[in-house]
Amino acid sequence: MRLVPLSDKVIVRRLEGEEQTAGGIVLPDSARQQPQIGRVLSVGDGRRLPDGSLVPHQVHEGERVVFERYAGNEVEIDGEKLLIMREDDILAVLES
Amino acid sequence: MRLVPLSDKVIVRRLEGEEQTAGGIVLPDSARQQPQIGRVLSVGDGRRLPDGSLVPHQVHEGERVVFERYAGNEVEIDGEKLLIMREDDILAVLES
Amino acid sequence: MRLVPLSDKVIVRRLEGEEQTAGGIVLPDSARQQPQIGRVLSVGDGRRLPDGSLVPHQVHEGERVVFERYAGNEVEIDGEKLLIMREDDILAVLES
Amino acid sequence: MRLVPLSDKVIVRRLEGEEQTAGGIVLPDSARQQPQIGRVLSVGDGRRLPDGSLVPHQVHEGERVVFERYAGNEVEIDGEKLLIMREDDILAVLES
Amino acid sequence: MRLVPLSDKVIVRRLEGEEQTAGGIVLPDSARQQPQIGRVLSVGDGRRLPDGSLVPHQVHEGERVVFERYAGNEVEIDGEKLLIMREDDILAVLES
Amino acid sequence: MRLVPLSDKVIVRRLEGEEQTAGGIVLPDSARQQPQIGRVLSVGDGRRLPDGSLVPHQVHEGERVVFERYAGNEVEIDGEKLLIMREDDILAVLES
Amino acid sequence: MRLVPLSDKVIVRRLEGEEQTAGGIVLPDSARQQPQIGRVLSVGDGRRLPDGSLVPHQVHEGERVVFERYAGNEVEIDGEKLLIMREDDILAVLES
Repeated sequence: MRLVPLSDKVIVRRLEGEEQTAGGIVLPDSARQQPQIGRVLSVGDGRRLPDGSLVPHQVHEGERVVFERYAGNEVEIDGEKLLIMREDDILAVLES
Repeated sequence: MRLVPLSDKVIVRRLEGEEQTAGGIVLPDSARQQPQIGRVLSVGDGRRLPDGSLVPHQVHEGERVVFERYAGNEVEIDGEKLLIMREDDILAVLES
Repeated sequence: MRLVPLSDKVIVRRLEGEEQTAGGIVLPDSARQQPQIGRVLSVGDGRRLPDGSLVPHQVHEGERVVFERYAGNEVEIDGEKLLIMREDDILAVLES
Repeated sequence: MRLVPLSDKVIVRRLEGEEQTAGGIVLPDSARQQPQIGRVLSVGDGRRLPDGSLVPHQVHEGERVVFERYAGNEVEIDGEKLLIMREDDILAVLES
Repeated sequence: MRLVPLSDKVIVRRLEGEEQTAGGIVLPDSARQQPQIGRVLSVGDGRRLPDGSLVPHQVHEGERVVFERYAGNEVEIDGEKLLIMREDDILAVLES
Repeated sequence: MRLVPLSDKVIVRRLEGEEQTAGGIVLPDSARQQPQIGRVLSVGDGRRLPDGSLVPHQVHEGERVVFERYAGNEVEIDGEKLLIMREDDILAVLES
Repeated sequence: MRLVPLSDKVIVRRLEGEEQTAGGIVLPDSARQQPQIGRVLSVGDGRRLPDGSLVPHQVHEGERVVFERYAGNEVEIDGEKLLIMREDDILAVLES
């Protein structure tokens, strides 16, 4: 079974514990908004502009991303918890 | 009797119990927003852009979809409970 | 005396009791938003796009429609209660 | 002395008592929003579109109109109470 | 010293007492929004449209205008209290 | 050290006491919104329109301006307190 | 490991203590909004206009910037606390 995101939606698997901090990234315990880290599993066909054309996604399958803490809806598929969020909720890509 | 959705509206039959989890999808009991699962019964003729043209729907009759938990208005027609929602409320299509 | 709706407005007579459920539709008593059912009496000349052109109404005189529960302003004309609502408040057309 | 409404503004004299119900219209005492009835005294030169052009008013001097209950600002001129409202606040024209 | 309003701003001197009611206008004590009356002292060069062009002001120096009660910022210049408001806050022009 | 404002931002030095009232302007103690007075130190390269072009600033270095009371962020640079605000927060230019 | 900001996002390292005040800038303790100071580490490829084209960032890697106090999400990467913010949150560039 496969989850296919619509238009500007992105499917992300949240990384936790060691998997998340691999490479030295840490989410500090501060008064600011704390993002989360995950891996992109699939992306929709893009965001539609007012003139009807599509802007392709900037993130790609397999990339590790930092996203807003409360972004997304959560589903569990074949035993794996996934988030469905808008690309707008993604702040940056983590390159190793 | 048939329910014909207008423009960007979509008619969805909510799936519950075993019918919903068929194929291994589960909606985890978490602090995040929990979506729901349903099957598309019919779609309107699409969303109208500011220039007046129509963007056809991305979901199609018969597809299984994941949608925002509180999306839609509920009616019961010929003994079947249906939801009328906007396509924007649909997050992803479930392919088996 | 006749009530002529402006632009994107639609005049609807709400159906109640048996008249409403004729054909098997029921509004279930649930926690979700419950729409209502009515018959279209007249429509304005359409919604104006930002470029000034008009999109004609999708609903037509005589059609039975499902609309958002709290849509519209109510007036009573020649002894008949009518609702004046925007077409946006109409969710679907009921075809027999 | 004359009150000249700007752009999308309309000057309306509210009708009350018998003058209002003449022709059989009644504003029922219900839980819904209750509109009011008035006569158009003058209209501005229209609503400006984003490209700068003007859409002329759909209502005309002398017409009887149904408008949102709390629409408009009230002034009294030469002993007559007038409302200055936007055309958007007008729902329908009453034709006899 | 002279106050030059920017773009869509208008400088208005509020009229009070006899000066305001001259010509028979009265602001009734009602439950509705009560506007105020003033004289236009100067206007900016107009409102800018999304395409960058300017729409000149509809009100002119010297005109008596009716405006929203709480419109504007107040300054006192050479002993005279003035209001700086947007033209959008002006409802109508009073012609004698 | 120099503070260079971005796009539609303007750097303003707030005037207080005698410097502010020079020329006869006073900010009356009223129930209305009270603006403040300052001198423009530098301006960004302008506001960007939806089509990507720039509208140059209407205020210029050295001008005395009236601005919304709570406009801007405050910094102190080389011992001088400065405000960084949007041009939208500026109501009028004071010409002597 | 490298953090690559998306579209209109900017990665900023907040400056504190002596590093921040170097050059004479101070954030006064006032009732107004207090911005913060940081150094730009990297920028996305720009903000997308409604027609789909990109406006490149106005700030560049290495620049010292003043930004809104509560702007951004905080992450810690290789022991360094970073902020991911939108360019809109940046008020001015500090040139020495």
